[in-house]
Amino acid sequence: MGQISITSKFWGRYRGLVRTEMIPFQWSVLNDQADIVIEKERNDDSIPNEKSHAIANFKIAAGREKGTHYGWTFQDSDVYKWLEAVAYSLREKMNPELEAKALEVIDLIADAQEDDGYLDTYFSILGLDSRYKRLAGSHELYCMGHFIEAAVAYHDATGNEKVLNVAKKCADNIDSNFGPEDGKIHGYDGHEEIEIGLLRLYRATEEKRYLNLAKYFLLERGKNPQFFKEQAKEYDGPNALNGIENLPDTYFQNHKPILEQETAEGHAVRLVYMCTALADLAAETGDKEIFEACKRLWKDVVEKRMFITGGIGSTVIGESFTLDYDLPNDTMYCETCAAIGLIFFARQMLRIEPNSEYAEVMERALYNCALAGMALDGKHFFYVNPLEVNPKKSKLDPTKSHVKPVRPAWLGCACCPPNLARMITSLDDYIYTVQDGGILLNQYIDSESHINVGNNYVEITQETEFPWDEAVKVSVKNSGVDAIRFGIRIPSWADEKCLIVDGKEVPINAEQGYHYLDIEANGKASMVLKFKMAVRRYYCNPLVSENNGKVAIGRGPFIYCIEGVDNGDNLNNISLPADKKLEYHFDEKLLNGVGVIEGEAERLVVDNGNSLYFTETIKKENAKIKFIPYYAWANRGENEMQVWIRE
Amino acid sequence: MGQISITSKFWGRYRGLVRTEMIPFQWSVLNDQADIVIEKERNDDSIPNEKSHAIANFKIAAGREKGTHYGWTFQDSDVYKWLEAVAYSLREKMNPELEAKALEVIDLIADAQEDDGYLDTYFSILGLDSRYKRLAGSHELYCMGHFIEAAVAYHDATGNEKVLNVAKKCADNIDSNFGPEDGKIHGYDGHEEIEIGLLRLYRATEEKRYLNLAKYFLLERGKNPQFFKEQAKEYDGPNALNGIENLPDTYFQNHKPILEQETAEGHAVRLVYMCTALADLAAETGDKEIFEACKRLWKDVVEKRMFITGGIGSTVIGESFTLDYDLPNDTMYCETCAAIGLIFFARQMLRIEPNSEYAEVMERALYNCALAGMALDGKHFFYVNPLEVNPKKSKLDPTKSHVKPVRPAWLGCACCPPNLARMITSLDDYIYTVQDGGILLNQYIDSESHINVGNNYVEITQETEFPWDEAVKVSVKNSGVDAIRFGIRIPSWADEKCLIVDGKEVPINAEQGYHYLDIEANGKASMVLKFKMAVRRYYCNPLVSENNGKVAIGRGPFIYCIEGVDNGDNLNNISLPADKKLEYHFDEKLLNGVGVIEGEAERLVVDNGNSLYFTETIKKENAKIKFIPYYAWANRGENEMQVWIRE
Repeated sequence: MGQISITSKFWGRYRGLVRTEMIPFQWSVLNDQADIVIEKERNDDSIPNEKSHAIANFKIAAGREKGTHYGWTFQDSDVYKWLEAVAYSLREKMNPELEAKALEVIDLIADAQEDDGYLDTYFSILGLDSRYKRLAGSHELYCMGHFIEAAVAYHDATGNEKVLNVAKKCADNIDSNFGPEDGKIHGYDGHEEIEIGLLRLYRATEEKRYLNLAKYFLLERGKNPQFFKEQAKEYDGPNALNGIENLPDTYFQNHKPILEQETAEGHAVRLVYMCTALADLAAETGDKEIFEACKRLWKDVVEKRMFITGGIGSTVIGESFTLDYDLPNDTMYCETCAAIGLIFFARQMLRIEPNSEYAEVMERALYNCALAGMALDGKHFFYVNPLEVNPKKSKLDPTKSHVKPVRPAWLGCACCPPNLARMITSLDDYIYTVQDGGILLNQYIDSESHINVGNNYVEITQETEFPWDEAVKVSVKNSGVDAIRFGIRIPSWADEKCLIVDGKEVPINAEQGYHYLDIEANGKASMVLKFKMAVRRYYCNPLVSENNGKVAIGRGPFIYCIEGVDNGDNLNNISLPADKKLEYHFDEKLLNGVGVIEGEAERLVVDNGNSLYFTETIKKENAKIKFIPYYAWANRGENEMQVWIRE
Repeated sequence: MGQISITSKFWGRYRGLVRTEMIPFQWSVLNDQADIVIEKERNDDSIPNEKSHAIANFKIAAGREKGTHYGWTFQDSDVYKWLEAVAYSLREKMNPELEAKALEVIDLIADAQEDDGYLDTYFSILGLDSRYKRLAGSHELYCMGHFIEAAVAYHDATGNEKVLNVAKKCADNIDSNFGPEDGKIHGYDGHEEIEIGLLRLYRATEEKRYLNLAKYFLLERGKNPQFFKEQAKEYDGPNALNGIENLPDTYFQNHKPILEQETAEGHAVRLVYMCTALADLAAETGDKEIFEACKRLWKDVVEKRMFITGGIGSTVIGESFTLDYDLPNDTMYCETCAAIGLIFFARQMLRIEPNSEYAEVMERALYNCALAGMALDGKHFFYVNPLEVNPKKSKLDPTKSHVKPVRPAWLGCACCPPNLARMITSLDDYIYTVQDGGILLNQYIDSESHINVGNNYVEITQETEFPWDEAVKVSVKNSGVDAIRFGIRIPSWADEKCLIVDGKEVPINAEQGYHYLDIEANGKASMVLKFKMAVRRYYCNPLVSENNGKVAIGRGPFIYCIEGVDNGDNLNNISLPADKKLEYHFDEKLLNGVGVIEGEAERLVVDNGNSLYFTETIKKENAKIKFIPYYAWANRGENEMQVWIRE
């Protein structure tokens, strides 16, 4: 796309944390050098949590060390996601020490790769005869997909050819094993991801086979819902996820062909990864039917199955979607990875349709659910991002044991933290969408960019203290030979919007959420978008029974929450009368600087003695209420938290 | 206690259903003759549901047939609970055909009993070497406990000595295998029940060893929380519930000695069965420390862990208690058996302490949670008794898959229906408590009784259309040589109470909920207790976050609910303004005749189109609301139901 340098104070802190804390920390975890207790995501003896062993697995597969595989079947992907984050980090800022580590890892991966291009330490160590035989749980293609993503990112950032060659060999091996031709496997991975990797590799290499293979995997999916069960019947070799075939077909989005799927079903991360690839394919091919399928699934997710924080996945069982309007606040899953996947999906949709709904969902998921996945220290992470937590219930009610009240340092299944790392380091890719002859400004992030649009070289500067402040100054300089069309997103959550172009206020005329300006060849424009981020009360569609009679508070891109540390225990005793005013102020000293919302509320009085049920109404008293942005919760110790408040 | 004949129209219908529907139906199930699909309580391939095979297991164990065991380790108990219900049914009304079946079963059980008294078809068939070796899940003592209960009941009802002798042989076998002496097993069953059986056998036989053995089991429990794990380590024989040892110690009430347990923990049925035996033991021995332990657990249950329907068990995981004030309406367990166990517990507590709280909790559990366990046709049964159901969520949200929206005919684990059968057929045992020189009237049930109190023979007649009508006429005739003290319970849920004794209104002077009258030797008394059963709004302790801002409706002993069939879908859209009046009337034609409560309410309007979140408040419209008693829900097809309504 070009060169984008993020200068935002808000995001700069996070990107710095990833560079200085997460990437080195994760490196030590992958090498089993970190002095941490790896927590389990569930109480389950089969979860490997003594160590990561991910680098050791590669060394064993490469023949450099003796030993056996340890960890999940998808342990390799931890290394790949680390490498991908390193690639973006180096793109942002070169660092010879980090580059040396990356090159070391690339050599190791190349050594671990089989001669025929196959790459998966689990099967290389435990038996290649078993490869591609139990795809429901094997995660082979999933891992290779992550490697290919990392390889393309690393190649893009540094020009390293070796890593791209390993990726091509990988993809060629897959291509020779899967496809419609006789003798090939007519199947796909249990966890979508290879499709994303192959499409990226297609863009990096212009090799059409990779596009076709991605398309094959996507369109083959669900044509034979028995595929995983048939494989499991035929072959009983090593498979750390034995029994996964017995999960419902929907878990794998394997219940019917993708283009016929009407609703977002199954494991939420898988669904959004699938949709990301599908939308990417639609963008690359212009295929209308595929785009309609994407749109159908998009609408089902965001209109019926998405929490107000941008979280998705309504149940821990299968980490899955359930049904339309089923959004329980305290038992849901809302995995960090799923919110990140939704951001990926939105980004691809924007390539096809310049509609700010995609940018706004992206923003919602980014500033709320995804960002909540990470502590302010950059060293602790949530998988599950609840909208209501009582730490006592998390401990003693096994129905809620997956809902942690504080972020652990690292989990046995280390999917979310490295996913956060790669998303935050590549945040520059989400600010703009470049299309034929045009640029969309999707995210308000203080930054300097040099973007190629066809034959035009465009410089864009965003000056803003967003997400806290209420103005964005955008300067665009088109150094090209063609006029370009520049679309600036007009935020839906703002009031009193005002757009000043080259010093003059212009009427805002938003098409699908973007106000467009034509910028002549060798021309330039300066825009100031001003808006008022009032404190907003949000109400939920009444079909979501959990939120009937409740209100959520937001300001700008942020959804707010209340925490016990500010509001005392028993948060649900607090109600917010509809007529009470809420005041916003920025507190420089709190939680690294956050906007705080305060006001008057009411609180049920707990003085009923030792009884459960009464014929007298419960007394209320006046109380203060204090909200903080959702992303910043659980940074002050274990306490209650709640997003939806009784009104 | 004497002879009690229930003439109540309300209860007569249920008792008739048990006699004419449940007992014959269950007989055909036990013999694998019923043409029904046995549903599974959970999606779990290990649940046996093809047939009952319970009688066949006995025939195989008795050497009458070839074959192997089928079903749960505790399958025998289905036969015993059937026999116990038959005993009460014969006590109520002799029936030669039914008696013949019972005698046939008793012969079969006697044949299946080992020479040394051991009785358990699972281990007799699969290997006696394994007996008593894996008590966490084996249910051997549990099953024998149920047999002993049935045997005592059958002996009491018919004088049959054979069945009592089988029970004594059983108990003697257990006594020779368990106890503090060297060489005996220092342990107890994973599921409490044997203790109840042994205490009943002690009363029937006056054999003190049985009392001591029950006491041993109770007081040994939890002294060595490793007991089950140690057994599992030592012996790896047949055990259909492999892995049960890994459940938390609390599941088995095995985490600390019972007398030190401060809170009601673990599997709810086990806890109340344990408490029933413990209170029985306290009543028999007068032991104050044991009574204090009962009282502590009672208070924790009813003051902090009991749903308004008398249901207990806050989570499906382990069918367990969780923590104080954790009472989720739509994910709870509230097993029918647990409500029945709470009734058992209350009955024993009344023997020690004449406090109407026990009678009222008994009544609450009886008229609400327990009765809801059975359809009005007597042929369909709930295990799980939710306070809020959406059938779509039960189908598509696996977190709620245990919450069935309609009662299945029979489940693989057939514990609840026969438990209902034995409770309803023995309901006469719950009306009065006989104590030294006194009688407590606990339940208002139209009936004629002849009760022995020491040397006194007392006739009591209750005339009442309760639970619908608002008066009970009680005539007591003491044909004895001593004065007796008669306590009539004054209901806490009533207004305008008025007591007329021998034609004259007297001031009500309730001691712990009972108004006492002394009835002279050869004297009599006639009482009319009148009260107003106004429609009541109940509020929940604000520490129960789920019910903050909500109201439940009750009248007399009944808790009411709203159903979709009367109120439309999306029940949580309905709210009940605090100032709206609710009117009661009896509807003879509805649901076999029920009291109905109707009034004006408000309803959120579902017209928001395809969005989840809005900045406009959700519109409301006026709506009618119609409540039916909770016990009668789910008798008109699959629909939503809700007990707690937003106020």
